[in-house]
Amino acid sequence: MKKLRIGLCGTGNVGFAFAETIINSKSLINQNYGLDLSISLIGARKGKVPGLENIKVIKDIQEVPLSDEVDVVVELIGGVEESFKLAKAALNNKKHFVTANKALIAAHSKELFEIAKQNQVHLGFEASVAGGIPIIRVIRDGLMSNQINSFAGILNGTSNFIFSKMAEEGLSFETALSLAQKEGFAEPDPTFDISGQDAAQKTCILATLSFFKHAVIENVHYEGIDNISTQDIDYGKQLQLVLKPLSIGMSKNNKFTLGSFPAFVKEKSLLASIQNESNAVLMNTESTGGTMYAGPGAGAKPTSNSVLTDIIDIARGKIFDYQEFVKTSLDASFEDFSCGHYLRMEVSDEAGVIAKISTVMAENGLSIDNLIQKELDKKEDVIPLVIVTSNSEEKVIQKVISDLRELSEVKNSISHLRILDI
Amino acid sequence: MKKLRIGLCGTGNVGFAFAETIINSKSLINQNYGLDLSISLIGARKGKVPGLENIKVIKDIQEVPLSDEVDVVVELIGGVEESFKLAKAALNNKKHFVTANKALIAAHSKELFEIAKQNQVHLGFEASVAGGIPIIRVIRDGLMSNQINSFAGILNGTSNFIFSKMAEEGLSFETALSLAQKEGFAEPDPTFDISGQDAAQKTCILATLSFFKHAVIENVHYEGIDNISTQDIDYGKQLQLVLKPLSIGMSKNNKFTLGSFPAFVKEKSLLASIQNESNAVLMNTESTGGTMYAGPGAGAKPTSNSVLTDIIDIARGKIFDYQEFVKTSLDASFEDFSCGHYLRMEVSDEAGVIAKISTVMAENGLSIDNLIQKELDKKEDVIPLVIVTSNSEEKVIQKVISDLRELSEVKNSISHLRILDI
Repeated sequence: MKKLRIGLCGTGNVGFAFAETIINSKSLINQNYGLDLSISLIGARKGKVPGLENIKVIKDIQEVPLSDEVDVVVELIGGVEESFKLAKAALNNKKHFVTANKALIAAHSKELFEIAKQNQVHLGFEASVAGGIPIIRVIRDGLMSNQINSFAGILNGTSNFIFSKMAEEGLSFETALSLAQKEGFAEPDPTFDISGQDAAQKTCILATLSFFKHAVIENVHYEGIDNISTQDIDYGKQLQLVLKPLSIGMSKNNKFTLGSFPAFVKEKSLLASIQNESNAVLMNTESTGGTMYAGPGAGAKPTSNSVLTDIIDIARGKIFDYQEFVKTSLDASFEDFSCGHYLRMEVSDEAGVIAKISTVMAENGLSIDNLIQKELDKKEDVIPLVIVTSNSEEKVIQKVISDLRELSEVKNSISHLRILDI
Repeated sequence: MKKLRIGLCGTGNVGFAFAETIINSKSLINQNYGLDLSISLIGARKGKVPGLENIKVIKDIQEVPLSDEVDVVVELIGGVEESFKLAKAALNNKKHFVTANKALIAAHSKELFEIAKQNQVHLGFEASVAGGIPIIRVIRDGLMSNQINSFAGILNGTSNFIFSKMAEEGLSFETALSLAQKEGFAEPDPTFDISGQDAAQKTCILATLSFFKHAVIENVHYEGIDNISTQDIDYGKQLQLVLKPLSIGMSKNNKFTLGSFPAFVKEKSLLASIQNESNAVLMNTESTGGTMYAGPGAGAKPTSNSVLTDIIDIARGKIFDYQEFVKTSLDASFEDFSCGHYLRMEVSDEAGVIAKISTVMAENGLSIDNLIQKELDKKEDVIPLVIVTSNSEEKVIQKVISDLRELSEVKNSISHLRILDI
């Protein structure tokens, strides 16, 4: 029977759940795949792990890949610096390396896959995007015969949870964020999630696999979600639109667009039905059209199981050949990206304001699809105005926003959200 | 460069689209996978294929697997008898065999995989279930570390199209079926689709992969969709239920339930949002919970692409080891299956009827969750009565239906639809 001895680095929520998964799944894996998996060593700074006393622990995590008792290093510590060092040490020591770390893969996949190849060992990263959904395998195996034209997904469960609660329960952004933290869907420091960086890293990884070109985070236009107000979500409802934290990748005539930002989708679209902390990815291919993959995006158990699929594949020799897939770098630009736009601004309640604003739009070649202005919403002498435009390129809408800001009738800042027809 | 020469059997819609896919994808596949694919021989009864004149054709399809110019036989003729003969000839002649034929796989997978193993060649069947969704790979690779507890899916696009049109446009079953035929979503002879047999065959295949046990069509409790009336769909709307052609597989304490039948799901459930000819599969695993996979269930291009993924995997040596997965047979029973039930009957419009019916329910230990009876719906001296019951086992509801039929107050037949909370 084939044996693989795992060196587990990191014993937080996910690390502990992973250890439990290995212990609990041992007989299932043994029976189904004829594979003997065990955790032979744990790297944990505290030097012991309550509940896993039977497994040898060392305090210096960087020593795990040096051990003769380890065949596969599983990295669940997070962050980039120490995990990168760990990954290099593992691969250079001819240990397979499996990680759930999107930041590490987004930043260093190219270099790591080169080291892996030189040392004839493998690197698994299924758990790095959409934890419980086997999206990496879907792209690299399930859709491989197809040309992928674009993808669109909800890749950050924290943001989706926040928007869902704002829409369902009318919570403010801050209250919804606190609730997410309380229920364990957001970290105590939620910066990575709400800045859009987490989703942007995952977008890089999906883009690299989808388009066969190495994407880096600088290729992704990303925006945070912390300036979203319940007002925007409410106006969206009136327009039959649902706000979602979207990540997109598009390929057209060898030009690429990658983005992660809050955007409206139509109420009837499949992505609109993905609620709370769930993730989903919609893949659009040349021949098959759209297929969608949905499920839990994070969580200790789903993540642990995705890590385990990589380990089983390593044992079965079913390995992703990165160099086969990814040969060149990806060049992306966002200014030609075209979609509908939602603009909310406060304007003076006087005659001729809408005429002036419409003129700015028309001068930039933009037509107005919807306009909402309600006397009821008036506060003092300003009144909110919501405009939905026809499809326009990013550079055009930015010019329009800048022109509108010049108008003395437009008070305060302008909320801008994109509307994607997916 | 690795070469694979394909012998294509069948040049109907799917066969022709497959040939086009190979021709159009040649350079993409060459570039991405270093693989030289070509169709070296076509088996077509007519002896020529307009549009594919450059490829050698033979009239006797059974001769294709005998050719020295063929490495992989692709079977797109459908049916069981001739395709089974073809499959055996191919595998015995040490040709790989790839098929989109669910009837063949559901009936003969065990025998065919044995012949494939003896001859050290491979058998691919990704296209046999949910054409454009890589569900076979998801189960065998993406979810392999998980114990699959159950699945529920919409596996027959024709039926889903018919129910969608009945619900959206108020069409009768017959009119919706004609529309499906006109738009190419139903065969001229739609028996396999509307009898439930097509979905039952696919249920067998998914069950075998999910539960590691060989399932046959006799294990599946299946029902047709031709007795569904728009009345049931309309009452469903009043109860916030949507009718879907569902296929289910459940495993509990080593007991199995497999079924394919029309059933109600809640309006808010993900499967309710899968419209028209689309397919979807919801997989419930022990550790990850639910993940959903949705997309086109059939169609010439999606099916062709799924066939092509099998061919690329054969070239890459990434092959499904059936004997590794499937060791024993599956035993299934339906009488313990428990869910909610919808019953519609016509009853005499007289005092005491509901009391009598409620008594029958109560005597069988069933409680009533919802009851609809509207004076407006009365016709002559009978009035429709709709009852939604609490969860009960199949054997109980069948006893209740049989008892209700004994009542003289219940006129005509009783419509019975299951309600699944998925």
